[in-house]
Amino acid sequence: MPEFRGVFPAIITPLTPEGRFNEAAFRKVMEFNIQAGVHGFWIAGGTGESILLDDEENGRMAEVAADQSQGRVTNIMHVGAPTTARAAKMAEHAAKSGVEAICCVPPFFYRSTDEAIVEHYRTVAAAADLPFFIYNLPQCTGVEITPVLMAKIQERVPQLAGLKHSAPTFSNVRNFAKMGLSCLIGNCMLMLPALTIGATGCVDGPINTAPECWLEIWNAYRDGDLKRAEVAQDRAADVCALFLEFGFHAAMKAALSERLGVDCGGPRPPQLPLTPRQRAELRKKVAELELDRVTV
Amino acid sequence: MPEFRGVFPAIITPLTPEGRFNEAAFRKVMEFNIQAGVHGFWIAGGTGESILLDDEENGRMAEVAADQSQGRVTNIMHVGAPTTARAAKMAEHAAKSGVEAICCVPPFFYRSTDEAIVEHYRTVAAAADLPFFIYNLPQCTGVEITPVLMAKIQERVPQLAGLKHSAPTFSNVRNFAKMGLSCLIGNCMLMLPALTIGATGCVDGPINTAPECWLEIWNAYRDGDLKRAEVAQDRAADVCALFLEFGFHAAMKAALSERLGVDCGGPRPPQLPLTPRQRAELRKKVAELELDRVTV
Amino acid sequence: MPEFRGVFPAIITPLTPEGRFNEAAFRKVMEFNIQAGVHGFWIAGGTGESILLDDEENGRMAEVAADQSQGRVTNIMHVGAPTTARAAKMAEHAAKSGVEAICCVPPFFYRSTDEAIVEHYRTVAAAADLPFFIYNLPQCTGVEITPVLMAKIQERVPQLAGLKHSAPTFSNVRNFAKMGLSCLIGNCMLMLPALTIGATGCVDGPINTAPECWLEIWNAYRDGDLKRAEVAQDRAADVCALFLEFGFHAAMKAALSERLGVDCGGPRPPQLPLTPRQRAELRKKVAELELDRVTV
Amino acid sequence: MPEFRGVFPAIITPLTPEGRFNEAAFRKVMEFNIQAGVHGFWIAGGTGESILLDDEENGRMAEVAADQSQGRVTNIMHVGAPTTARAAKMAEHAAKSGVEAICCVPPFFYRSTDEAIVEHYRTVAAAADLPFFIYNLPQCTGVEITPVLMAKIQERVPQLAGLKHSAPTFSNVRNFAKMGLSCLIGNCMLMLPALTIGATGCVDGPINTAPECWLEIWNAYRDGDLKRAEVAQDRAADVCALFLEFGFHAAMKAALSERLGVDCGGPRPPQLPLTPRQRAELRKKVAELELDRVTV
Repeated sequence: MPEFRGVFPAIITPLTPEGRFNEAAFRKVMEFNIQAGVHGFWIAGGTGESILLDDEENGRMAEVAADQSQGRVTNIMHVGAPTTARAAKMAEHAAKSGVEAICCVPPFFYRSTDEAIVEHYRTVAAAADLPFFIYNLPQCTGVEITPVLMAKIQERVPQLAGLKHSAPTFSNVRNFAKMGLSCLIGNCMLMLPALTIGATGCVDGPINTAPECWLEIWNAYRDGDLKRAEVAQDRAADVCALFLEFGFHAAMKAALSERLGVDCGGPRPPQLPLTPRQRAELRKKVAELELDRVTV
Repeated sequence: MPEFRGVFPAIITPLTPEGRFNEAAFRKVMEFNIQAGVHGFWIAGGTGESILLDDEENGRMAEVAADQSQGRVTNIMHVGAPTTARAAKMAEHAAKSGVEAICCVPPFFYRSTDEAIVEHYRTVAAAADLPFFIYNLPQCTGVEITPVLMAKIQERVPQLAGLKHSAPTFSNVRNFAKMGLSCLIGNCMLMLPALTIGATGCVDGPINTAPECWLEIWNAYRDGDLKRAEVAQDRAADVCALFLEFGFHAAMKAALSERLGVDCGGPRPPQLPLTPRQRAELRKKVAELELDRVTV
Repeated sequence: MPEFRGVFPAIITPLTPEGRFNEAAFRKVMEFNIQAGVHGFWIAGGTGESILLDDEENGRMAEVAADQSQGRVTNIMHVGAPTTARAAKMAEHAAKSGVEAICCVPPFFYRSTDEAIVEHYRTVAAAADLPFFIYNLPQCTGVEITPVLMAKIQERVPQLAGLKHSAPTFSNVRNFAKMGLSCLIGNCMLMLPALTIGATGCVDGPINTAPECWLEIWNAYRDGDLKRAEVAQDRAADVCALFLEFGFHAAMKAALSERLGVDCGGPRPPQLPLTPRQRAELRKKVAELELDRVTV
Repeated sequence: MPEFRGVFPAIITPLTPEGRFNEAAFRKVMEFNIQAGVHGFWIAGGTGESILLDDEENGRMAEVAADQSQGRVTNIMHVGAPTTARAAKMAEHAAKSGVEAICCVPPFFYRSTDEAIVEHYRTVAAAADLPFFIYNLPQCTGVEITPVLMAKIQERVPQLAGLKHSAPTFSNVRNFAKMGLSCLIGNCMLMLPALTIGATGCVDGPINTAPECWLEIWNAYRDGDLKRAEVAQDRAADVCALFLEFGFHAAMKAALSERLGVDCGGPRPPQLPLTPRQRAELRKKVAELELDRVTV
């Protein structure tokens, strides 16, 4: 199994004024990040409004991502859904579309037995037969993938390559790494700390608004330059704090709209857009952080 | 706003061997419960596999329920979905289909602000303009509807009639009742206790396998016959315990298949069916509980 | 094992202006409750400031309670402490002092294994060799006594008579009752509901400020008069709500000071007393509830 | 306020065969760690059996620690207790005994308001008038010190110097550091990660069994030698894992008994000692980790 290493923005899903997938804007956000040097994308995941998307939108996004990338970066496509059948169908389509890997949240809403979770993952992973990532996100799914459960998955899912670890049990980064998995830390506040205990990279939403900040961490770390890495992580955390303050999806879309000069729309309801006052405050803070306007 | 009172089975969604909605079996389960004397149904809710159903299945179920009922009982149709648009569309269709009321889980997966939850409910309720029920189920949705949040909803959602209260904060039954809401307790182990502090009835899954047990509680309570009500609640709890032991959806479908002689199928994956051994044990326990075979 | 049945106020620990145990006021609060007809007391428990008391104060309280009661009611003395040795020593002293039963929280602060919890209880119960009650209070102790753990305790602790059930899992009342235990519900909002599924009585703090309210529930229930019991439970819940609003210990001491004309002092720090404004508001609400002044 | 920097073992409390504080063994464990180069101790904290100790034992421990240290290292004495009066009295005594700083858990068992927590800390800190540390340990105390609550404490407690951060919210390390506090990470699995986001050192129990492992992390980090620091953290985590496997207090005491050839006793009941089989397994694993026997 190849290792998945580096900086992977969890890309937003830009929407048109009518609230549909905005393909053109999505290509621009991708290109901005590719030009900055990211190693790949986490697509239609938590940041990408995941389960708020139609299966058709999910499928189209896989196609567009593969086409825009043209093999330049590693696309990891999220295919999680409430039923195994829907997730497997999206997995199959993602593989045909040409993405490099897929990822999947565990079954949510109803609590599942370990056996049901493993069987779900076995079926979905087989449908794509690509490197497979677990999305460990208990705050949304209600189920934490512990090392014990992960071992059961590893035994039954030959495609298993790694995970996005967004659970609060930070010390499990080391445990997952020791299992031979590519552990991508799912909290971009903690990229550098995670690298020091075995993470192979970072996936998170704020990255796609300012990929240069996290690439600086990555490069400094790779060079063994501890002080530079710490300074970079500290600046990156300031950027990340912006989105915790203003509401995740709405604020990231607004920040990207500002920075790229491309309307990325608001979040899909029931999530609420920024108020005009919040938008103005966000614009001010983005300016203070010296995130320059970029043309793509 | 009319009060919603009595015993409301949360009806299962029978599936064909191919895993699709089994309309004929659904009609038989409904009819069995109507003949037993239930006051209405909670349809496509937690027991009905809710968010594992397609929107088309949900819509068809509303039509079939209204048609089978012919006004004899009160149908409360669940229309919850990850996006406001999908939930509102199902609400509109439910109203056209002729159900008496709708119900809806709050937004799940992503945590929403109170403001977003209220706005979601306002839009969904307006789309049907029928009596509206909140589905308070924090163990699945990650959000508890507290009396404080309920008051905000009550202020903005004129259709609000009540709730299914399945949250562990049992003493809130009284608080919701004092707000003028029809509080249907969502744990059939606790129907009698809930009635004594203001609940107007009970909604839960086990009821649809043995409605006579909960109707006996209802009738004894209405007659002020405390001892008889307690004996009935105790027997009902024994029935309920069966489904906690064997797995909720799979066991209820198996029990109904046995009792009615109608194949109700297994649960939709990722949920797992009973093993043959579990099925045999369940059959034995159903017999011990003296739940007689019924012809519908 | 005798059954423990009825209304058991969890008595406050009145303090002198210097912050020491006020024996005279304690006797008056006891006598007020005995005259009202309560069946016994839960002493030095959660309401009695439990682990904020010195072991000497705990010991003195057992002596005073037995002396004041003179066998008229059933005193259940709390002896929980961080170490097994301290709890066992208090248990031994309580038995010598003449109380009728003892009770004990599980080990707290550090999480203990089931085996350690059982061994702790075995030692403490043996030291008194009186009927023994578990105090199931996970919100303070961090450990919930489930029916599974209770079965392990029942196997090893021959003195086990029952429990005060203050955990949120309300349906476990029935499970504990089925084990042959005296299950005293620890939430006085829920006395009537708990009686209908097998509780043998109620222990809680607000009772000692207005025992007549809960005795009315008990008497109506015993007479099988459901409507009267419901009216009584509703009024009792209004009294209880007062203490949830103003802060538990401080408000109960203030209410008793008002009602009996006996200074019961404030809570022991770190708990804060009522502000003068809170005190005035409380006085007003006590008057609205028509809890008359009583001379003891 | 001086910064508190480096490696601080949370020292065990050795017990005699009779279960009392073993002063001679305590001095030997201290000396072993001082010789190894630690920067100070966290005494009578979570690892030191904290609230299981008598106030007299706590007081004696402060005296012995100051006497043994003779100013060579920084002793941080824990004085947390259920009442403000007891904690303040221990704080006063600790200051007189000559320790360099004190620390304190927030009020536990009963949930306190923020105002009560701040007032508790104000009183306790003033009683010693030494640099003061918060002990952030929600898994034992039921209350998490968030940055918002910490800001309220900082405003009212002039002695505040820092905290031991043992809460799961790892990213708060940075937030506390930005407030000018010495943030000592309380999980020795995470010393290196924490240093990269602003921690000034580490406090934890496993350190006192093998201080050389964590000093190697500290020295490598100080030298900017990232690879060496990661190797050291990895080895340290293997040592730490031992104590998670066998039970914290019992296993650390057994390991120190083995390593120093000094009987440190078992834990105080209700905590259970290792079984002979566990003890043999632990001995084997300690040998595999190549923690050599040391003479003190």
